[in-house]
Amino acid sequence: MSGNPSDRYVIGVDFGTLSGRALVVRVGDGEELGSAVHEYRHGVMDRHLASSGGKLPPDWALQDPDDYRDVLRCAVPAAVAAAGVDPANVVGIATDFTASTPLPVVADGTPVCELEGFRDRPHAYVKLWKHHAAQPQADRINAVAAERGEPWLQRYGGFISSEWEYAKALEVLEEDHEVYERMDHWVEAADWIVWQLCGEYVRNACTAGYKGIWQDASSPTSDFEEALNPEFAGFAKSKLEHRIGALGDRAGGLTAHAAAWTGLPEGIAVAVGNVDAHVTAPAARALEAGQMLAIMGTSTCHVMNHDQLVEVPGMCGVVEGGILAGSFGYEAGQSGVGDIFAWYVDNQIPGRYFAAADAAGESIHDHLTELAFAEPPGVHGLIALDWVNGNRSVLVDASLSGLVLGQTLSTRAEQGYRALLEATAFGSRMIVETFGVSGVPVREFVVAGGLLKNRHLMQLYADVLRLPISTIGSEQGPALGSAIHAAVAAGAYPDVRAASGAMGRVEQAVYRPDPHAANVYDRMYAEYRLLHDYFGRGGNDAMKRLRQLRLEAIA
Amino acid sequence: MSGNPSDRYVIGVDFGTLSGRALVVRVGDGEELGSAVHEYRHGVMDRHLASSGGKLPPDWALQDPDDYRDVLRCAVPAAVAAAGVDPANVVGIATDFTASTPLPVVADGTPVCELEGFRDRPHAYVKLWKHHAAQPQADRINAVAAERGEPWLQRYGGFISSEWEYAKALEVLEEDHEVYERMDHWVEAADWIVWQLCGEYVRNACTAGYKGIWQDASSPTSDFEEALNPEFAGFAKSKLEHRIGALGDRAGGLTAHAAAWTGLPEGIAVAVGNVDAHVTAPAARALEAGQMLAIMGTSTCHVMNHDQLVEVPGMCGVVEGGILAGSFGYEAGQSGVGDIFAWYVDNQIPGRYFAAADAAGESIHDHLTELAFAEPPGVHGLIALDWVNGNRSVLVDASLSGLVLGQTLSTRAEQGYRALLEATAFGSRMIVETFGVSGVPVREFVVAGGLLKNRHLMQLYADVLRLPISTIGSEQGPALGSAIHAAVAAGAYPDVRAASGAMGRVEQAVYRPDPHAANVYDRMYAEYRLLHDYFGRGGNDAMKRLRQLRLEAIA
Repeated sequence: MSGNPSDRYVIGVDFGTLSGRALVVRVGDGEELGSAVHEYRHGVMDRHLASSGGKLPPDWALQDPDDYRDVLRCAVPAAVAAAGVDPANVVGIATDFTASTPLPVVADGTPVCELEGFRDRPHAYVKLWKHHAAQPQADRINAVAAERGEPWLQRYGGFISSEWEYAKALEVLEEDHEVYERMDHWVEAADWIVWQLCGEYVRNACTAGYKGIWQDASSPTSDFEEALNPEFAGFAKSKLEHRIGALGDRAGGLTAHAAAWTGLPEGIAVAVGNVDAHVTAPAARALEAGQMLAIMGTSTCHVMNHDQLVEVPGMCGVVEGGILAGSFGYEAGQSGVGDIFAWYVDNQIPGRYFAAADAAGESIHDHLTELAFAEPPGVHGLIALDWVNGNRSVLVDASLSGLVLGQTLSTRAEQGYRALLEATAFGSRMIVETFGVSGVPVREFVVAGGLLKNRHLMQLYADVLRLPISTIGSEQGPALGSAIHAAVAAGAYPDVRAASGAMGRVEQAVYRPDPHAANVYDRMYAEYRLLHDYFGRGGNDAMKRLRQLRLEAIA
Repeated sequence: MSGNPSDRYVIGVDFGTLSGRALVVRVGDGEELGSAVHEYRHGVMDRHLASSGGKLPPDWALQDPDDYRDVLRCAVPAAVAAAGVDPANVVGIATDFTASTPLPVVADGTPVCELEGFRDRPHAYVKLWKHHAAQPQADRINAVAAERGEPWLQRYGGFISSEWEYAKALEVLEEDHEVYERMDHWVEAADWIVWQLCGEYVRNACTAGYKGIWQDASSPTSDFEEALNPEFAGFAKSKLEHRIGALGDRAGGLTAHAAAWTGLPEGIAVAVGNVDAHVTAPAARALEAGQMLAIMGTSTCHVMNHDQLVEVPGMCGVVEGGILAGSFGYEAGQSGVGDIFAWYVDNQIPGRYFAAADAAGESIHDHLTELAFAEPPGVHGLIALDWVNGNRSVLVDASLSGLVLGQTLSTRAEQGYRALLEATAFGSRMIVETFGVSGVPVREFVVAGGLLKNRHLMQLYADVLRLPISTIGSEQGPALGSAIHAAVAAGAYPDVRAASGAMGRVEQAVYRPDPHAANVYDRMYAEYRLLHDYFGRGGNDAMKRLRQLRLEAIA
């Protein structure tokens, strides 16, 4: 590598649910010079398989892996062109992906869905993170693991998700044995795309740990696999385990084939894969102990580093090197945030609010937020639980549902909206407090994701959490995070922490707690906590019984 | 009295909140021949006093008594004309009124607000039932009565309302001493209008009992009055007590003055006054033990007779002869029913539902009901509490508020609407069960009021209550009930029961419980009950604390 870092560039590519985005970043200072988006041609296949038109069962969500290659073929050159840089000065590329988004491949990395005879087999395709049809398998994994006292279970808050690698692999075995037999590797798309770029299969430490139950340098035992299903015995050894790469490591050099797709120089550094949430931490300079990064969008993902291994109740996972090599990376989550607000706006807001928002030239969310926060906290008299999409942390219970309490005949729609915003802040406080009492204190809350634009929401979080809120300074957090990893893989920085310091962007303590508001929210949080424990910890299992009744009534 | 009953007629006049309605009814068979409505010129004065333009405080609601005379002058002759009957064949008139709606008058019945020097004094006017500014006085009445162990307190479910005679009289004393001194009688409008018609002041057994704490032929003691306020001592003896008239008795004969107003023959029977809810029982032929009449509108009032005196927890009152001479009349209530549905429609229904209702030529309520009941019970997975306007029976707690539980991202607006309908049915079941375990069993649920038109709602009540639902056969229940009392006062029938049998109208057991739906609703009611007791009986006083926080936050 040669030349002035200010003349050298890296590419970060963020593979999302519906599209991939490539971002060109200057190595020296993290300046974002150009980007391009490519939408997946097949999007999310959740009703029909594109190749055959065959109907998919409920809860399925597949993708076609060739759509990911299209992002390399289309978005990368377009971003380089938009940035106006000479491709010869691009020194590295890195990617991040949704997760857990695994696919079955054969020894050379070819997806099973691209093999003759398997094109019309749904199980041969990529199972997108939100494919939820492996719930029976996940239930069995959790029951068997709990019964056997598997030591890794508490590393995941006591709960292995149906979204992750083991449940989905077991689903393939039990529902399409030929696909299971045919595959040589069960690969995260995060690693498959790197394989496509550099010809090397390297499992990244992040997905291997958070999604693949890779803990203390080993997988679950064959005995455990056999207890799930005798034919599943040997799964990890035969189809999962492989070389692990640390985040920011060079996985290999760009192949001639991939150089032709992307227009980038052959041989440049290709970084080990990563996950969209976790890769954002260096982009937001949120790598130190005490800093919790919340990526707030339809849901919220919380990630943070700490120097010790602790089992925090209800977390999603703790993985050594899962966010930053040399640290223990923690993840927690709220399963519904922005999508609860969107649900409320779609289903509970009268037309006159939309008309007023239009007249004011505001979005409906901005309009409701302004109306709702025109009055001091506590005036609406409401408390809600943020469980409309279930609860991930800290209760880990998808069968929970929503609650709103305190309505009077003078309660207005925007007050209900605010109560839901507040409920998500209380949910985050529950997570922050649980981390704190478990020995992982949080001193700063850093926000990335689309919801950071809502200033009232950010101030609310500062007040409820009694923490300063910092906000990421990039609108492309994951892609910038990937670019940082590309720079490290290219050798431009000694490690991700150093690259983050030079290339990451954050506005520090933009929101600080207002003591008066915080006092009012403390009283409301006390109510939230009471309801949270009563309905979430066995005081009253009404939500579970109503869910059961609902299933029976539908059937 | 002479001639064939089929040629004789009676007039029932129903004085509501905004207008009075006169109905001409044939004595022999209850046929309704014509009616007319007159709207009160001053309506409800809740912001300004009409005479002076002076601003009224919050929670006030006054009326001008001359508006009631206008109903006699306008609606009665118009109804007779519309019926096409000869006024000479009208043999009696009876009235019913909102309650408790008292006013201060001097010895000859002249309202204090019509005296020189008092026209601009708000306390000189009629205090409409929904005047709620006497809450501090009511709180004191309840505290003092409970502390002294007043024996009558349990006749009112342990709770004297701010709407009733004592709280409002004490308010006059403490806020306008001159008005209090000037008045010779504190009279229910129900009795004042009869006084206007026949020149006789007779307190009707219904308001005296339910609103005036007249129990076991006596008022609260002077000691009790003194404990409330030394200057209040002697109130009952000096300003309240008077001859009590049984319902259906003749109070006197129509005066020449009132005959001129109404165009009716001088000297015809004028019946003792009555209350709009209670007077409906004979109109719906719901006079027997085991029959509960529910007048379902913005709120629901439940009335029923029983042959024994029992203290039912949380009832509004039990009064001997309060509904029918010779029986013990029980009253209970739900403080929010139709107005909760209206609140939800105004504040939580998206515009597309209104557009679809318009396109289908349906009311929004009909449209939502059809949508919501297109799926079987239990599918929506929701439970609500019907406390958006507080709870009257059986918790007697105005500080309670609403709750909805069970929302998911697929919950639709019409499902929330149905959950509220169901919540009111569960609230009625709570009342029916409380009566039952107290020794006042309910075997039939008879419905009057505007909501009986909603067939899905009626079937829901049948299923939830596991009782046959009968519906009144008249759209003018109170006025028909008054006409029945007029016929008795005129001597056309020996008593109200006999007149009800001949003139009342009911469709029996129109709705019967569906066993399958009832089983599902049983499971939902079990959830309602748990929440009811947890939030209503001290398990979690969140609603009270949030209300307190709200008051502080507003202040």
